[in-house]
Amino acid sequence: MESTKIILDENEMPKKWYNIVADLPTPLEPPLNPATNEPISPDELAPLFPQALIEQEMSSERYIDIPDEIRDIYRLWRPSPVYRAHRLEKILGTPAKIYYKHEGVSPAGSHKPNTSIAQAYYNMKEGVERITTETGAGQWGSALSLACNYFDMECKVYMVRSSFEQKPYRKSLINLWGATVVPSPSPDTQFGRKIREEFPDTSGSLGIAISEAIEDAALNENTKYSLGSVLNHVMMHQTVIGLEAQLQLEKVNEYPDVVIGCCGGGSNLAGLSFPYIKDKIDGKHNAEIIAVEPSACPTLTKGKFEYDFGDTAEMTPLLKMYTLGHSFIPPAIHAGGLRYHGESPIISNLYADGFISAESYHQIEVFDAAVTFARSEGIVPAPESAHAIKSTIEYALKCKQTGEEKTILFGLSGHGHFDMASYDKYFNKELSNE
Amino acid sequence: MESTKIILDENEMPKKWYNIVADLPTPLEPPLNPATNEPISPDELAPLFPQALIEQEMSSERYIDIPDEIRDIYRLWRPSPVYRAHRLEKILGTPAKIYYKHEGVSPAGSHKPNTSIAQAYYNMKEGVERITTETGAGQWGSALSLACNYFDMECKVYMVRSSFEQKPYRKSLINLWGATVVPSPSPDTQFGRKIREEFPDTSGSLGIAISEAIEDAALNENTKYSLGSVLNHVMMHQTVIGLEAQLQLEKVNEYPDVVIGCCGGGSNLAGLSFPYIKDKIDGKHNAEIIAVEPSACPTLTKGKFEYDFGDTAEMTPLLKMYTLGHSFIPPAIHAGGLRYHGESPIISNLYADGFISAESYHQIEVFDAAVTFARSEGIVPAPESAHAIKSTIEYALKCKQTGEEKTILFGLSGHGHFDMASYDKYFNKELSNE
Repeated sequence: MESTKIILDENEMPKKWYNIVADLPTPLEPPLNPATNEPISPDELAPLFPQALIEQEMSSERYIDIPDEIRDIYRLWRPSPVYRAHRLEKILGTPAKIYYKHEGVSPAGSHKPNTSIAQAYYNMKEGVERITTETGAGQWGSALSLACNYFDMECKVYMVRSSFEQKPYRKSLINLWGATVVPSPSPDTQFGRKIREEFPDTSGSLGIAISEAIEDAALNENTKYSLGSVLNHVMMHQTVIGLEAQLQLEKVNEYPDVVIGCCGGGSNLAGLSFPYIKDKIDGKHNAEIIAVEPSACPTLTKGKFEYDFGDTAEMTPLLKMYTLGHSFIPPAIHAGGLRYHGESPIISNLYADGFISAESYHQIEVFDAAVTFARSEGIVPAPESAHAIKSTIEYALKCKQTGEEKTILFGLSGHGHFDMASYDKYFNKELSNE
Repeated sequence: MESTKIILDENEMPKKWYNIVADLPTPLEPPLNPATNEPISPDELAPLFPQALIEQEMSSERYIDIPDEIRDIYRLWRPSPVYRAHRLEKILGTPAKIYYKHEGVSPAGSHKPNTSIAQAYYNMKEGVERITTETGAGQWGSALSLACNYFDMECKVYMVRSSFEQKPYRKSLINLWGATVVPSPSPDTQFGRKIREEFPDTSGSLGIAISEAIEDAALNENTKYSLGSVLNHVMMHQTVIGLEAQLQLEKVNEYPDVVIGCCGGGSNLAGLSFPYIKDKIDGKHNAEIIAVEPSACPTLTKGKFEYDFGDTAEMTPLLKMYTLGHSFIPPAIHAGGLRYHGESPIISNLYADGFISAESYHQIEVFDAAVTFARSEGIVPAPESAHAIKSTIEYALKCKQTGEEKTILFGLSGHGHFDMASYDKYFNKELSNE
């Protein structure tokens, strides 16, 4: 039997993160202070982030060492497995070979801990005792809670109220790992109180939650703020995914013709694809890289590449990125992790330069693909990850038509154990086809 | 750094199951026909089980080959990892070394697919097109659905009504894998209709659900019945757990001083411990084996060793086992998988002969242990598995007092991603201390 899982030893886990900023053909445009339109200085970020992360955010070093204390936690689930999807290939009748990197094996169930562990560590090293963040569906909030738990730090999560009420179990996870979670807008911040007075019935938004978390970090001692996607250092932390995948596919003498990942803020796609994009930049290989987004939030496929705020309340620096406009509010699709108006500046840069292409799919066809995957491979995918599955299936079916034996690698960014209510809606035909 | 995970290659996955019946010092007493008090013949089981499983149930062959088609599916998640719980050891301050075998990595999230895959396979081979079963909390129902999905068979699950209503997400899993699930008592069987007429408000019980599933299998063409624990062939299928664990601990030159598993019907404990009990019987090693049960359902610690029915409706053969009486209805503890009045006849035999000892714990101290584990190792354990964690912590703390560097191996039979409502109750202090 050909093997199904490609496993690495702990000692094969990457010892450095890959910082693609060192290799970008077009230099990144800097974040700007909206008041002055001048590039943000490291000092201006100091109230929110520890020094080490600010340095990483602005670094152009190609490789940055992963501290042993972080690797010591990564190895609880890393290296994550690469699977050959034999059963999915068979069901599709495709000559393509389908591989997937499974990040759902982390305790929080997604790729998010790759950066939450790193961020909590650097905060702890600099004496920070408390971290604030926002979360939509709860993946990021639970991942940061897990990380703060490992380093004995307090964590406060502002969770978009509609999710707080509709997704009780990610909230339970946050509690289990010892963090505090409140529905946003909350009475705990000035901004939250203001919104609650003006709009008592609001269901909240990621923009409001970001503003609350930032205000909390800025006003409270020994407290910093943490972001789960978009920023350069977050993209870099996630590259352990692609670095491992390259080594794993080498072991079976494969190099992918195409690398596919779902894309919201961009950290999942960045993590898997950046080491492959390096090979493209270096002229060594030329894998196609596909970003898959929901039609309901088509940042790359329909957005504009311009400076915009990261939040609705205009509290963040201006970032040069693909954006739907910071006041854009996407429909309440079940892939909550992909509902962001903007896009990582690095991913935006690479997309503009043609290193990445993008596709978008509607909600129901994405769930169709998720069910096909669950019934062939067994694993229940997160709705976010199912976007990559949908694109993979399309690609594999094209190969069936052409007879090409291409090699596909896609990122299974997380499992869907906390998304079963969404599957229920799908089976009950209650899903809107956004 | 000492390694955290001990991983095996796919080709190190066991090729045979271990049948401890071949080695039992006291022979098993046979199941009896309650009408005649005579041992059950293979023919009497034929309406419910395929021939191959009846043969395994009655076999005294020491090793039985695992067909390639079954190993081909096992390898989607097997070999499962053994972890060294470095962080738990540190938090406890114990000199003991704690290892755990993680069966929660299966798509259904527990050890149950080790036997559901095998049972579905043998049914498929004999032309069975449809399998019925009962489920309480839903672990077994989802595992059998997964298995029938792989072999393109229909599956009907009778789910205890109270669980059907309270645990919607395991029901969703069953649907996702293409099976049908109805609340029991259901209008679909004669027995179900009778109960619904007599007790319209009943919340159902495992006993009623078993009776419905058996009636359905007996009356419908090409339909057989499947049981997820208790029976000899089920215990045998689970021995892949312990066979792998032995190989994994050998790789780090360890042999456990104690093997700990939670114990309801017995299949989890059997799977992990039988290969170690073989070494005891053979006089090669002498690991202590601890069965951990809830105080609310103390089958081994308080039950009697006698012939009893497997179900409340007295439809099954009589089994010689530890039992609390087939009319015993345990309190509604959150470890639904351990709420069974009886016990595997093999486990009962070994317990009576002193090869296994037993402990019981109350619900709240079990959840305390689960939270300690989640906060040290990250993984959210199932409430069932948390019984083994509680016992492990007690053992490790004893080692702290005596200074003994003992080696503990426990079975993490499943994750708790579908049990977050129970954790919520724990944190809200709404758990009764059964």
